[in-house]
Amino acid sequence: MSGGTTGDPNVEEDQSITVSLLSAQRSVPNSTSQVAIVGAKVCPIESLDYEIFENELFKQDWRSQGKLQILQYICMKWLLCFLIGLIVSLVGVCNNLAVENLAGVKFVVTSNMMLESRYGMAFLVFSVSNFVLTLFASIITAFIAPAAAGSGIPEVKAYLNGVDAPGIFSIRTLFVKIIGSISAVSSSLLVGKAGPMVHTGACIASLLGQGGSKKYRLTCKWLRFFKNDRDRRDLVTCGSAAGIAAAFRAPVGGVLFALEEMASWWRSALLWRAFFTTAVVAIVLRAFIDLCLSGKCGLFGTGGLIMFDVYSANISYHLDDVPPVLALGVIGGILGSLYNFLLDKVLRIYTLINEKSIYNKIFLACLISIFTSCLLFGLPWLASCRLCPLDATEACPTIGRSGNYKKFQCPPGYYNDLASLIFNTNDDAIRNLFSKGTDSEFQPSSVLIFFITCFFLSIFSYGVVAPAGLFVPVIVTGASYGRLVGMLVGSRSNLNHGLYAVLGAASFLGGSMRMTVSLCVIILELTNNLLLLPLIMLVLLVSKTVADAFNGNIYDLIMKAKGFPYLETHAEPYMRQLTVGDIVTGPLQLFNGIEKVSNIVHVLRTTKHNGFPVIDEPPLSESPVLFGIILRAHLITLLKMKAFLSTQVPTGIDSLNQFSAEDFAKRGSGNGDKIEDIGLTEEEMEMFIDLHPFTNASPYAVVETMSLAKALILFREVGLRHLLVIPKISLRAPVVGILTRHDFMPEHILGLHPVLVRSRWKRLRIRFPSWGKIF
Amino acid sequence: MSGGTTGDPNVEEDQSITVSLLSAQRSVPNSTSQVAIVGAKVCPIESLDYEIFENELFKQDWRSQGKLQILQYICMKWLLCFLIGLIVSLVGVCNNLAVENLAGVKFVVTSNMMLESRYGMAFLVFSVSNFVLTLFASIITAFIAPAAAGSGIPEVKAYLNGVDAPGIFSIRTLFVKIIGSISAVSSSLLVGKAGPMVHTGACIASLLGQGGSKKYRLTCKWLRFFKNDRDRRDLVTCGSAAGIAAAFRAPVGGVLFALEEMASWWRSALLWRAFFTTAVVAIVLRAFIDLCLSGKCGLFGTGGLIMFDVYSANISYHLDDVPPVLALGVIGGILGSLYNFLLDKVLRIYTLINEKSIYNKIFLACLISIFTSCLLFGLPWLASCRLCPLDATEACPTIGRSGNYKKFQCPPGYYNDLASLIFNTNDDAIRNLFSKGTDSEFQPSSVLIFFITCFFLSIFSYGVVAPAGLFVPVIVTGASYGRLVGMLVGSRSNLNHGLYAVLGAASFLGGSMRMTVSLCVIILELTNNLLLLPLIMLVLLVSKTVADAFNGNIYDLIMKAKGFPYLETHAEPYMRQLTVGDIVTGPLQLFNGIEKVSNIVHVLRTTKHNGFPVIDEPPLSESPVLFGIILRAHLITLLKMKAFLSTQVPTGIDSLNQFSAEDFAKRGSGNGDKIEDIGLTEEEMEMFIDLHPFTNASPYAVVETMSLAKALILFREVGLRHLLVIPKISLRAPVVGILTRHDFMPEHILGLHPVLVRSRWKRLRIRFPSWGKIF
Repeated sequence: MSGGTTGDPNVEEDQSITVSLLSAQRSVPNSTSQVAIVGAKVCPIESLDYEIFENELFKQDWRSQGKLQILQYICMKWLLCFLIGLIVSLVGVCNNLAVENLAGVKFVVTSNMMLESRYGMAFLVFSVSNFVLTLFASIITAFIAPAAAGSGIPEVKAYLNGVDAPGIFSIRTLFVKIIGSISAVSSSLLVGKAGPMVHTGACIASLLGQGGSKKYRLTCKWLRFFKNDRDRRDLVTCGSAAGIAAAFRAPVGGVLFALEEMASWWRSALLWRAFFTTAVVAIVLRAFIDLCLSGKCGLFGTGGLIMFDVYSANISYHLDDVPPVLALGVIGGILGSLYNFLLDKVLRIYTLINEKSIYNKIFLACLISIFTSCLLFGLPWLASCRLCPLDATEACPTIGRSGNYKKFQCPPGYYNDLASLIFNTNDDAIRNLFSKGTDSEFQPSSVLIFFITCFFLSIFSYGVVAPAGLFVPVIVTGASYGRLVGMLVGSRSNLNHGLYAVLGAASFLGGSMRMTVSLCVIILELTNNLLLLPLIMLVLLVSKTVADAFNGNIYDLIMKAKGFPYLETHAEPYMRQLTVGDIVTGPLQLFNGIEKVSNIVHVLRTTKHNGFPVIDEPPLSESPVLFGIILRAHLITLLKMKAFLSTQVPTGIDSLNQFSAEDFAKRGSGNGDKIEDIGLTEEEMEMFIDLHPFTNASPYAVVETMSLAKALILFREVGLRHLLVIPKISLRAPVVGILTRHDFMPEHILGLHPVLVRSRWKRLRIRFPSWGKIF
Repeated sequence: MSGGTTGDPNVEEDQSITVSLLSAQRSVPNSTSQVAIVGAKVCPIESLDYEIFENELFKQDWRSQGKLQILQYICMKWLLCFLIGLIVSLVGVCNNLAVENLAGVKFVVTSNMMLESRYGMAFLVFSVSNFVLTLFASIITAFIAPAAAGSGIPEVKAYLNGVDAPGIFSIRTLFVKIIGSISAVSSSLLVGKAGPMVHTGACIASLLGQGGSKKYRLTCKWLRFFKNDRDRRDLVTCGSAAGIAAAFRAPVGGVLFALEEMASWWRSALLWRAFFTTAVVAIVLRAFIDLCLSGKCGLFGTGGLIMFDVYSANISYHLDDVPPVLALGVIGGILGSLYNFLLDKVLRIYTLINEKSIYNKIFLACLISIFTSCLLFGLPWLASCRLCPLDATEACPTIGRSGNYKKFQCPPGYYNDLASLIFNTNDDAIRNLFSKGTDSEFQPSSVLIFFITCFFLSIFSYGVVAPAGLFVPVIVTGASYGRLVGMLVGSRSNLNHGLYAVLGAASFLGGSMRMTVSLCVIILELTNNLLLLPLIMLVLLVSKTVADAFNGNIYDLIMKAKGFPYLETHAEPYMRQLTVGDIVTGPLQLFNGIEKVSNIVHVLRTTKHNGFPVIDEPPLSESPVLFGIILRAHLITLLKMKAFLSTQVPTGIDSLNQFSAEDFAKRGSGNGDKIEDIGLTEEEMEMFIDLHPFTNASPYAVVETMSLAKALILFREVGLRHLLVIPKISLRAPVVGILTRHDFMPEHILGLHPVLVRSRWKRLRIRFPSWGKIF
């Protein structure tokens, strides 16, 4: 079996103990792809089954469902989507409210001290409050729910691909994610809240689907329809769409994000439910905006939910504005891929540090916090004070937290432009950068300093052990770089600098995250101006093309670094040269249609396999015939229920009445029973179980001569967990082996056929690294 | 074989003669699903193969491809997308320009005559010009390209599902579609131009991919990579996205439309290429708008390309506006499903009329044209003249073609509100309905008359033998009904009547076309106001939900009426009760690995099958072994090339050098060689062919005990044309049968198992008609 252990017995957290086991059917030479590094612990990863599992028991249960049950199912589906939308939007509002008020109070207090020239005291208050907030976020993350660290988007994306990382949807992860994200963002770390919102949305969806947490589960009978991987996956998809919708007030963008970036399988019906979920989010947010605009939300209201709504005026641009926009796209692509490269490297270094001890993690987070505080407070002193413009539409210098003209250390009538950007919340900085009619407000040197700071600070901030998103840092970095380009182009362009900032943000997002339609719609919904559309499309296309020539998208890199066995859509070129038979290895464990209990117990104890072929052998049939495949979880349930026969005689269909489909329903992620917990007497061990009613009699199978590339397409498109391999010549045993997700991982295949490594690289070099993704 | 014949030998058009044959492997009891009624002729429909066809020859060709070929392929892919975008946008511009100028001149001339009170003459000019334009459109459609009639969206949607209706992508269809659409829309028929634009885009994409038409094909070597169904399908998807983008100036909406409504398979990479295509469209359109705004486009410029850009101002609405919006959604859903129901019935009656003779078709079109002219000219006399408002922002009454205040028969200083709507181009009518600050401009009675006229006229106009879209009629009908609701709600609402018109259009679109995200984005891009988003989402969700309770979406109904064997995503409930073995019937034709020429010729002549299993039998192997599947087209090519062996001895790999993959490449739709055209001598008939190198050795297969529902999922998700059925017990022949698309059609299955009909209806009644689509 894999190199993963079932967890160090000394660790306190239960998610590493309760995780289920790997689904690989045989020993895998190269086990790196199967082990996830969550926090600093090595945990095995379960894979999921999106195929319909059809055994006689489930079929009978399905046939017995009447009008009422089907109506229940439909109602529950839509009710759950409604609840997901409602709860996610409420969380989004609370999140925004808390961040704006926490960070707001901090900046107001500090600014007031600086007005009185108590600079030392101001720095102390600023850095200590940041330190405390970061410490709090990192302590709860490290000790309570390590799975809540980071953005969460890679984990959810992997889940939707069929990789169930341990603990990502537990209730403690949810709470830590929400609270940790609020304190991390409030602590002026350069981290975003969109990624954590996506994870929060997915978490809420998963918990709602399984009816609360595994411990405090509500026993809602109506939810029994959702105790399978397929329905849970659909809910999680809707949840992640709701997350983006709530974070950016971008309902259409949220649906498209879930579709383009998150989901590995997609149906048109799901589009509609995701759309419904985000519509609920949009309407609830709209109601809260009405409420907050009337000033009932404290410091919140001018910022936060009302995103960067700064472009209601008409913009005119012509074809001669295209060259600078193209340049913006090219540079954005290069910077984006550089960003991905550096982030990946820094993350790997951080993992080495974090692996050692839980205190290392917290220490690292504190260090980054202090460093950030020093930079944010120290850098504005480098900028020279600028005279307030006479025609300023708002007070200059601004007294308080928001506004374009921060006073900082400047005398009255002057403002510090770098402080307006850097000594501010990220949302306000973006708003300042995006706003039009501010072409003369910022000096190039300030924007340059701001850009460099953001670029590196966001790389170093992401890996700390706290919930941390990437969207906002990328947007703020891209906006500053875009504004810089706008300054360089100067008056040769019809576009104002704010527009350049928007396009810069788009290009950097495109270069780093490599989405197209969804980013385009999100940016449109953020800036609320459809006239920008052609330019944004252009810039996204160019930056994605350029960046794809260098490396993969940021979430894929993080997934790879975490070791998730993510199944790609496209087959690698060398897979066309192999057949399925070439990668099937190892001894195969089979069961008879009516199997002895002691055999089952022995096989379950000695192997870690998750699925077993069931064969009808000569006493029961003329020749060995493949009957189907049975799951480990179902076998354990059968053993637990002690549904034994005294003789090797098939039972009738009536005997199924003692079972209910619910006993065999899939539980929440990673909390099944274990074979070690089941005690059986000597007598019971000698009895038999009729496996037929519990066996999936319609397993997908391929002939061993099938090309590996085509088997992968089947495996991926239909969403399988096990794929049976049957022999070409019919005289041998009726099944040759089982393929699982891990068998399709390039590491595994190249481990078995090292000669292909050369041809693989040859291919890859021809197409340039990862250009394979383009088509 | 199916009930379809290969075409009446007396017809002139070659597309009905050159069509390829049905892919069914055996006789199908119920053949209604396999025959399309295109125009009035019965033509067999070919199905397409989206699976990768892997035989030794193709593999070797693929292996021999170097750096250069792969680069060529990538470049061609993007170049083709660029060309599609460019050409489609140019066609879109020309289309708009022509319509605006033709219809504009007509209205200006008529209005001038009416100014001089020459009403009789005005009616004559109006109706005769309409008559001539309609006659022209229907004559070219009926005689040159019957496949160009109607919207074309159902045909393209069916193509992307794998159904190749004859002649839909020929060059003459393209020309007739463009010219016919211009004259039909200019002739004041209530038909749209968006549907024809989608078909035009798909047609351009398909023709570009195959390098021009089949007759005048450019022999471009670079295009050889695109001579397969998969790449052509991708291009057609991009083309249909470009069509919507060009028709509505909605690039993001176009991509989403292609994704949500058109495509049956979708990959993330395709999203990007479709996005690129529509970005090209957006940029080219933008350039032309710049050009036309400077007044160089004749009467064109104020209308047409600049869609209903009437909402740049801020709109405020609150939660108490939600009830009327909900009501709008419910009524829109009911009206939409009624619309679909009536349209379907009228289409079936029209088909009966049109079937009889080609002159019937033209007569029907002329009748509709005269009827339309009478209504458009007659109805405004019913409306009373209204005093021009004193604060009107434009001249009142309007002299000329455009504008809100048509004079019609009214005295100076007065205007006819019904004429402003009805005696106008559809685009201008929509613009008038959508515009804000016009709450007192229209009387309820006029809007009611307009609504009823549009509702029924559009139903009667769609089926005429001319290119005719549904989008614009549905929008104009929906807008008038929305405005009516706005008037009823009156001052109790914060929303103005123009906004109600927008929401009404959305609800009617949702009720009739049943899209969500794409319609939402298209409406946003049309009206250019993102603040409407939550309301539009709400109205679309409600109207789609209500309408889905009654019937299916309009395009699916049309596809069903045309008899396309469209493969649905979801399996019908009764399919879970059947196994694959239950529907495999009829004698199976097999070939030996090395087969006698006379046998091949005999089988090809006596059957219409499109794929044949290849078996290695005892002389060549120990026991009968399934080697793979070979296509009829490849067999014919082999016979044509006379690649024969004198003895039954396998050839080496070297013999492949005499073949090139290009000989076996898929041609354009429906123009393969026929077995009857190949002449062979007696001597040649006694020779052998080694089929191994040309056989797909990796066919997808299922065991006969596989549940039908799961086989359908495999068939649908992987995009197959043939699915082999292998026996459960290994002692029998290595293959039991072949499943094709037609075997999965409900009509076929229920024909074989009539007992299921009852259970099927039971299920459907429980879930309400077609509620199965909801999930």
